[in-house]
Amino acid sequence: METKLKKIKAFVFDVDGVLTDGGLFADLNGEFYRTFDSKDGFALRMAIMHGYHLGIITGGRSESIKMRFQACGINPQDVYLGSRNKIEDFEDFCNRHGLIAEEVMYFGDDLPDAPVILACGCGVTPSDAVDEVKEIADLVSTRPGGKGCARECIEMVMKLHGEWKLDVQDYKKKF
Amino acid sequence: METKLKKIKAFVFDVDGVLTDGGLFADLNGEFYRTFDSKDGFALRMAIMHGYHLGIITGGRSESIKMRFQACGINPQDVYLGSRNKIEDFEDFCNRHGLIAEEVMYFGDDLPDAPVILACGCGVTPSDAVDEVKEIADLVSTRPGGKGCARECIEMVMKLHGEWKLDVQDYKKKF
Amino acid sequence: METKLKKIKAFVFDVDGVLTDGGLFADLNGEFYRTFDSKDGFALRMAIMHGYHLGIITGGRSESIKMRFQACGINPQDVYLGSRNKIEDFEDFCNRHGLIAEEVMYFGDDLPDAPVILACGCGVTPSDAVDEVKEIADLVSTRPGGKGCARECIEMVMKLHGEWKLDVQDYKKKF
Amino acid sequence: METKLKKIKAFVFDVDGVLTDGGLFADLNGEFYRTFDSKDGFALRMAIMHGYHLGIITGGRSESIKMRFQACGINPQDVYLGSRNKIEDFEDFCNRHGLIAEEVMYFGDDLPDAPVILACGCGVTPSDAVDEVKEIADLVSTRPGGKGCARECIEMVMKLHGEWKLDVQDYKKKF
Repeated sequence: METKLKKIKAFVFDVDGVLTDGGLFADLNGEFYRTFDSKDGFALRMAIMHGYHLGIITGGRSESIKMRFQACGINPQDVYLGSRNKIEDFEDFCNRHGLIAEEVMYFGDDLPDAPVILACGCGVTPSDAVDEVKEIADLVSTRPGGKGCARECIEMVMKLHGEWKLDVQDYKKKF
Repeated sequence: METKLKKIKAFVFDVDGVLTDGGLFADLNGEFYRTFDSKDGFALRMAIMHGYHLGIITGGRSESIKMRFQACGINPQDVYLGSRNKIEDFEDFCNRHGLIAEEVMYFGDDLPDAPVILACGCGVTPSDAVDEVKEIADLVSTRPGGKGCARECIEMVMKLHGEWKLDVQDYKKKF
Repeated sequence: METKLKKIKAFVFDVDGVLTDGGLFADLNGEFYRTFDSKDGFALRMAIMHGYHLGIITGGRSESIKMRFQACGINPQDVYLGSRNKIEDFEDFCNRHGLIAEEVMYFGDDLPDAPVILACGCGVTPSDAVDEVKEIADLVSTRPGGKGCARECIEMVMKLHGEWKLDVQDYKKKF
Repeated sequence: METKLKKIKAFVFDVDGVLTDGGLFADLNGEFYRTFDSKDGFALRMAIMHGYHLGIITGGRSESIKMRFQACGINPQDVYLGSRNKIEDFEDFCNRHGLIAEEVMYFGDDLPDAPVILACGCGVTPSDAVDEVKEIADLVSTRPGGKGCARECIEMVMKLHGEWKLDVQDYKKKF
């Protein structure tokens, strides 16, 4: 596992059930809203500060997803909304950033994530993912979606690289 | 039970406490908003892809319910809002789709659902339903409302029929 | 306890932490929104159908509270918003409905509720109320605020009176 | 510990994960909304009634935070939004109110809070804070963020000072 984790240069995430608890708040116009986690958000910003590439691949279509991750420092073109074939979007992300699959940690919790879980360098799944994904994941987080799963595994990689330290002045400049 | 499950061709759902945890977010205009579950939503889409009939029968009146299930592929005319006598709406749903009661799995959690739980082919209730409904249900889910109850029981039926497999290309075409 | 419960003709509720889990969703205009429970709501409607008087006494000021309980059949004049001295509002409610304190079950979870918990016929508190209120309450619900506390205790009274039965036709006419 | 607590004249709070469970509800405009706790809010008002200084230091930028705490009686100038170096804002708060660090209890749950946790008179952290902060905090609450952590520790200080009593008439005048 440590060998796998040491190669990681990028983190890519499914959204619902991974960066949220799967809850979709529905309004009168057919729009869905999500609740994200502040500790996950801090980890995303730390990863960006230390030069990792970050991406989002979701079946969701709401612009609110783009807005949320822009606030964490993720480029809008690295947020794939309305994804119906995640492996295609995963390959596009890798190509655009000059990454090979082994350098990417992917987080997913349901069947549409399975192909990417298998293809990437380290497939991570929350503690409350579906069984089929848990069985094929390289790493099952001790935490459920939207409650620290992303935080836990980003920390794991960055601590291994000696990077999990907050330089307040740097943080201040960037965010 | 397996005999009952094998006959199922349709899934019909109460909303509050079944496809949600029972939470009603109230705004200033008397409108209520609900939070749905992404893994439940995926199961609804899988069922539709494989030709099942899906319906919603709820006492709730918010158009947001219709919008949410349209996104899952359910026809607006199969969403019964403001239902005050659920057995009537259940019979209407069966008649319109040429279904007999034995072919329908119905999900409910409270007293107004009891007549349909008794009338349908397989009455399902979440783990946090009221006692009166748990006592008469054919199946009590291991999961509470809004947290995978629908997913669990749709999977159970579809796995029995050998249908719980994701064809990404088909999924891409349909949703 | 049974003697106390048999006298009850009215149910009066604090809102935050009783009919909600205490969560206050804050918007940009200083308005707070709450999430209510559908099973509690059904019990409120059952109580009204059977002739009980229902009231709300809350420190909250949002009109959304009034809207939510109007949907359950509670008269707007029985919803006391912005209450800063709950015993005064409790007495006003009793006077207006010709009730004596022994005929009212009051639900509260925090210090401002203590005087009414002590004054009413049966003071109820959720399982997650503050210790000071739990110590003086006549009844501590097995359920926390916003998750069935109201339902549990309304049922207890109505079952004792042989009234906890749903007449669908009556329900249809009224709601 | 009692010696430390007896010196406290002010309470200062991080927001996300302390006065909330860390959840950030994202809308289409890049705004984030939070859910606060009514029992925490009551404790904030009690502290203000008894002359404590209250402050908020958060990385969050939403005006909704200011609105929420104004409703509890906190002055808008004591709410530091968009804080990227919390120790600077903490020192500003102390200077403006003529407080020394030993007189302030600070609540935080993540790395950006660590310097203030160390600098203040009594550093408090919720039960679900990150390990690094739990290790340096003077006090780890038995309760998680957004679910009574603030309430528990404000009560602890005020009970020690014999101040945890509700004078309804005073409360009525002030809020």
